[in-house]
Amino acid sequence: MSNDPLVIFTPSGKRGNFPVGTPILTAARQLGVDLDSVCGGRGICSKCQITPSFGEFPKHGVTVYEDALSEWNSVEQRYDDIRGLTKGRRLGCQATVQGDVVIDVPPESQVHRQVVRKRAEAREIVMNPSTRLYYVEVEEPDMHDPSGDLERLIKALRADWDLPQLEADLGVLTGLQPALRKGEWKVTCAVHLGDDTFSPRIMQVWPGFYDGSIYGLAVDLGSTTIAAHLCDLTTGEVVASSGIMNPQIRFGEDLMSRVSYGMMNPSGADEMTKAVREGMNALFVQIASEAEIDRNLIVDAVFVCNPVMHHLFLGIDPFELGQAPFALATSEALALRTLELDLNLHPAARVYILPCIAGHVGADAAAVALSEAPDKSDDLVLVVDVGTNAEILLGNKEKVLACSSPTGPAFEGAQISSGQRAAPGAIERIEIDPVTKEPRFRVIGCDLWSDEEGFEAQTAATGITGICGSGIIEAVAEMRLAGIVDGPGLIGSAEQTGTDRCFPEGRTNSYLVHDGTADGGPKITVTNVDIRQIQMAKAALYSGARLLMDKFGVDAVDRVVLAGAFGAHISPKHAMVLGMIPDAPFEKVTSAGNAAGTGARIALLNTEARKDIETTVQNIEKIETAIEPRFQEHFVNASAIPNSAEPFPILNSLVDLPNINHNQGGGDEEAGGRRRRRRRA
Amino acid sequence: MSNDPLVIFTPSGKRGNFPVGTPILTAARQLGVDLDSVCGGRGICSKCQITPSFGEFPKHGVTVYEDALSEWNSVEQRYDDIRGLTKGRRLGCQATVQGDVVIDVPPESQVHRQVVRKRAEAREIVMNPSTRLYYVEVEEPDMHDPSGDLERLIKALRADWDLPQLEADLGVLTGLQPALRKGEWKVTCAVHLGDDTFSPRIMQVWPGFYDGSIYGLAVDLGSTTIAAHLCDLTTGEVVASSGIMNPQIRFGEDLMSRVSYGMMNPSGADEMTKAVREGMNALFVQIASEAEIDRNLIVDAVFVCNPVMHHLFLGIDPFELGQAPFALATSEALALRTLELDLNLHPAARVYILPCIAGHVGADAAAVALSEAPDKSDDLVLVVDVGTNAEILLGNKEKVLACSSPTGPAFEGAQISSGQRAAPGAIERIEIDPVTKEPRFRVIGCDLWSDEEGFEAQTAATGITGICGSGIIEAVAEMRLAGIVDGPGLIGSAEQTGTDRCFPEGRTNSYLVHDGTADGGPKITVTNVDIRQIQMAKAALYSGARLLMDKFGVDAVDRVVLAGAFGAHISPKHAMVLGMIPDAPFEKVTSAGNAAGTGARIALLNTEARKDIETTVQNIEKIETAIEPRFQEHFVNASAIPNSAEPFPILNSLVDLPNINHNQGGGDEEAGGRRRRRRRA
Repeated sequence: MSNDPLVIFTPSGKRGNFPVGTPILTAARQLGVDLDSVCGGRGICSKCQITPSFGEFPKHGVTVYEDALSEWNSVEQRYDDIRGLTKGRRLGCQATVQGDVVIDVPPESQVHRQVVRKRAEAREIVMNPSTRLYYVEVEEPDMHDPSGDLERLIKALRADWDLPQLEADLGVLTGLQPALRKGEWKVTCAVHLGDDTFSPRIMQVWPGFYDGSIYGLAVDLGSTTIAAHLCDLTTGEVVASSGIMNPQIRFGEDLMSRVSYGMMNPSGADEMTKAVREGMNALFVQIASEAEIDRNLIVDAVFVCNPVMHHLFLGIDPFELGQAPFALATSEALALRTLELDLNLHPAARVYILPCIAGHVGADAAAVALSEAPDKSDDLVLVVDVGTNAEILLGNKEKVLACSSPTGPAFEGAQISSGQRAAPGAIERIEIDPVTKEPRFRVIGCDLWSDEEGFEAQTAATGITGICGSGIIEAVAEMRLAGIVDGPGLIGSAEQTGTDRCFPEGRTNSYLVHDGTADGGPKITVTNVDIRQIQMAKAALYSGARLLMDKFGVDAVDRVVLAGAFGAHISPKHAMVLGMIPDAPFEKVTSAGNAAGTGARIALLNTEARKDIETTVQNIEKIETAIEPRFQEHFVNASAIPNSAEPFPILNSLVDLPNINHNQGGGDEEAGGRRRRRRRA
Repeated sequence: MSNDPLVIFTPSGKRGNFPVGTPILTAARQLGVDLDSVCGGRGICSKCQITPSFGEFPKHGVTVYEDALSEWNSVEQRYDDIRGLTKGRRLGCQATVQGDVVIDVPPESQVHRQVVRKRAEAREIVMNPSTRLYYVEVEEPDMHDPSGDLERLIKALRADWDLPQLEADLGVLTGLQPALRKGEWKVTCAVHLGDDTFSPRIMQVWPGFYDGSIYGLAVDLGSTTIAAHLCDLTTGEVVASSGIMNPQIRFGEDLMSRVSYGMMNPSGADEMTKAVREGMNALFVQIASEAEIDRNLIVDAVFVCNPVMHHLFLGIDPFELGQAPFALATSEALALRTLELDLNLHPAARVYILPCIAGHVGADAAAVALSEAPDKSDDLVLVVDVGTNAEILLGNKEKVLACSSPTGPAFEGAQISSGQRAAPGAIERIEIDPVTKEPRFRVIGCDLWSDEEGFEAQTAATGITGICGSGIIEAVAEMRLAGIVDGPGLIGSAEQTGTDRCFPEGRTNSYLVHDGTADGGPKITVTNVDIRQIQMAKAALYSGARLLMDKFGVDAVDRVVLAGAFGAHISPKHAMVLGMIPDAPFEKVTSAGNAAGTGARIALLNTEARKDIETTVQNIEKIETAIEPRFQEHFVNASAIPNSAEPFPILNSLVDLPNINHNQGGGDEEAGGRRRRRRRA
């Protein structure tokens, strides 16, 4: 092994040893890390900004000391003086390697930025926002009957608008007198109408008639991405939607590795809190600039997130969420002020965070419940929010059950040999001919299939770089349908499958999807280890759902709703072939898109909905999968594709699942532990 | 005139021209400015810290530019690195004069610090504080019935203590889980019980049984001094009292000069806000250290102040208070959080500011009304809070009237030739023999009269340095009683008075109180200009009171209460000889000490009293002296000593006021404009 320092880049995970003194930009280029530069390392363009991380990184097996990079130099100082460099950032072309180091490449420094696919969904919402605009004319002061300008303003608001007794934020008081005089005693006020925590208050005063609008943010704070919808609080319209990667990723891809980072590093939780709040503020700048509005016009914000993100965002160490009994510091909804969370919106903006359902079922699941309303459904609906952690709701008007299941990051393309996040160049759809076993596919950023005219030209810019989450689900399901993979999950040999695309790799076989090496691109394959990862993930998901069905006393559900940005891209047929979801007619499996984000938007625009969901959450029955004895049994059955114990009659009536078995030598590569043969229904 | 830069020191007002390059400490020593140094200017002891002020100083006739002092040097840098130098501070021995400059000597850099005489007065208060301590045992978390740790804590508090539905501050949430586990599910909570603005909230959680206390501050924010009482919120006991000079003094001695500073300088109001908040924080450090408690245990604070201080403290430009119609930005009581005011107490500490009565009658007057309760008095009481601005209340159970009157700083020893603030060495009491016209006096810091054995030895350390406010009142009254000064306010010549202590100075005479020049001390005299200043001040005070009597329809009051730190030191007899207060038996003139501070303490310890005073203030009838035609007439009459129009029968029955007139040449030195001779009653 090299004695040179080790440089590890996140989020790509690429790593290499480099001599002391190597600029980070040089290291990135040598490793093929996506780090932008326009000036070619002359310290002018500042596109190559990176963030070094310090401390213990057990996951990477390194400890990064404070002097891992060269000292801040005059080029960086000059840039900072003139244009300002975000705290913690370095210029990649200036900072040089001095010791082992972990380097985060922020999204804005990447040429191929992630296409964040969370988008606002169309949905009717009854407008009832927390904050409204009111125009009034105020009495002038009278020495003979002295009263404060504020008191006369409040009197006018009560008289003209029938508002309750109001108070004013301190920021209003400092600007009130000039505004009243400039507007000749006519002003427009933004008034927060009050809630359980805050008394009704004037938040902002404009001289005369203010013909602009005020805004609110619905934020879906995910482990991987942070997505926000900027809404006009008057019209309810989504004026901008934007997303960034969660900067906490450099502390760990999944939630549990972040919890451990907090446990291993004394100030780890604080660092993660700071990172997510900074990321949040960067997102706010981005979305306000996209909408071309002043950030100070954003007066309300609603957040949804899983419990670990919830705690880290609030500055609470998530330690207790990493171990039984998974105690939340607080489970109820929270009403706060941006000031308390270091968020740069209107200085007196209010923050509402939806309640958590349980230690593993967060405010994001509550938001899904608000959006999909299983508690108002006549038929029995299963709502699955697919992510690194899947939140599952099952219910109808009678009752609603909830649980979560740790699917891991496989559905996001992580831990898959050719996996990658959903970004241009990633394979997102795939079909395999059952006879020839030849695949065709589509990649993000191109509307053509790979066997169509012009595909190569259209994908030349992005290349074909890997398989994203929805792509790997389709790949495995298509391989199962084409007989390349058997029920227990074993890939057949070239001989067994009759195609050279199957080739041995170690003790198992792999399937070649695309060989781009001739064009300098990667060889994209699905290995048997990949199949195992998908089997684990989908088994976790299914067994959670199945456990809720047990608790509900049913063997089938009427319909399935796939929520989450990822859920929107899953094909119902392939999900069911995989056995991710219970057996149901394909048309009864629908996508709700980013239901958590939609729930956040509902809570933002309709304060009554906040009370609704608070009540609903209290009535949801929480199931802790970790302590349910049947969970393990369901998990083992669900490891097979689609399932070794359950018949899936509807699925079998719709598709032809080859009844094959590639395990002819026996041994350790057998999935699940059961070998029951199933016949087509 | 010298071309050298002008150096002006505040609060002393001493000034002189010094060559470029002179260290500030050297300049201070040459001018006799009280600036400490232990190391003799070697940059080690840091006792000589000073604060330069920049901008326009119309009062001093200078503009101070940013480069008025030499640049920050390595000695200062080293000191700052090792021990930290408060922002804006310089070391007086290192910073040198480069241009005209105004230098503030902060109290802690003065050898002879001011004895702030505001002290907590003994008074019974029914304890009903905003925040209380509760000990509870909390249920442990249960995976089968998940709920947040906070929710179980709140449940326990409700069950055991019958508390309302509580919320928790964010700071509580971050420390809650470790506290519960460390205390083995037993904790002590500080709970703010809620008010019109804040819902009831848990503010702090300690593991197990916390046997300490929590504290509150009652702060009297005066134009000149800021005084605070630190109270134990459990016992009500005053555990420490402390005061500092208001750092805003460097922007102007009196309120109107501060209002003008804000008008002349774009960021003037902000600077003054910053200064007073910084001073406040310095006071908090001082009082917490005096009481030997952690500042984070201070969870509530009540502030009283005049309207200009009120606005500046809140960050509101007091511009409108400088001109008719004297409109307050807000007049009602305010409930805020320390966070909003940059105050370093418990991070979630609550702040309550009493309501203002009118544009010139502030929250300090409201506090006096709370403390002295004229609205609950059977007899008609006149309450006078003597300060740079006098607040006057007149009333009984039927009604209460209020006004303010601009007395100016003469009563604080300012604008008096030998005047000084109340500090060791100042003459505070004086008697003049009516026959020999010889004075004897007492100085602050010594219990002996000047003609008593041992006086010289006991005053050797402080010297006899000037006359403070109570001293000047006694001096003028005694001069009037001894026939040295006549009714219109003219000092007689040596011939007219029969004493060499009267000597000509310019076109009028002065009276020699003490000649310390033989011992290197000052010559202390009362000049006729001094008499005029006192006449103006007391006439302003009296005519305000008289106006309220007119409005009430009375010619006499039953009793007089002198409030304010200064009021506590005024002799009723001398005040009445001067004609400061209406005619009344001496024993009916009492001192309430720092009634504003006492009012603040009542509001701190008893939240019900907050509601009381809010209602009372709304019922007080406000009189604006500036627009009352009779005010001028009363003022002219009251310029004579005691009064040219009113008979003061009770006073005349108790003392012998010589019926004399020193104006034998006629002309410009005549007071008031009336020459009515009065006979003894």
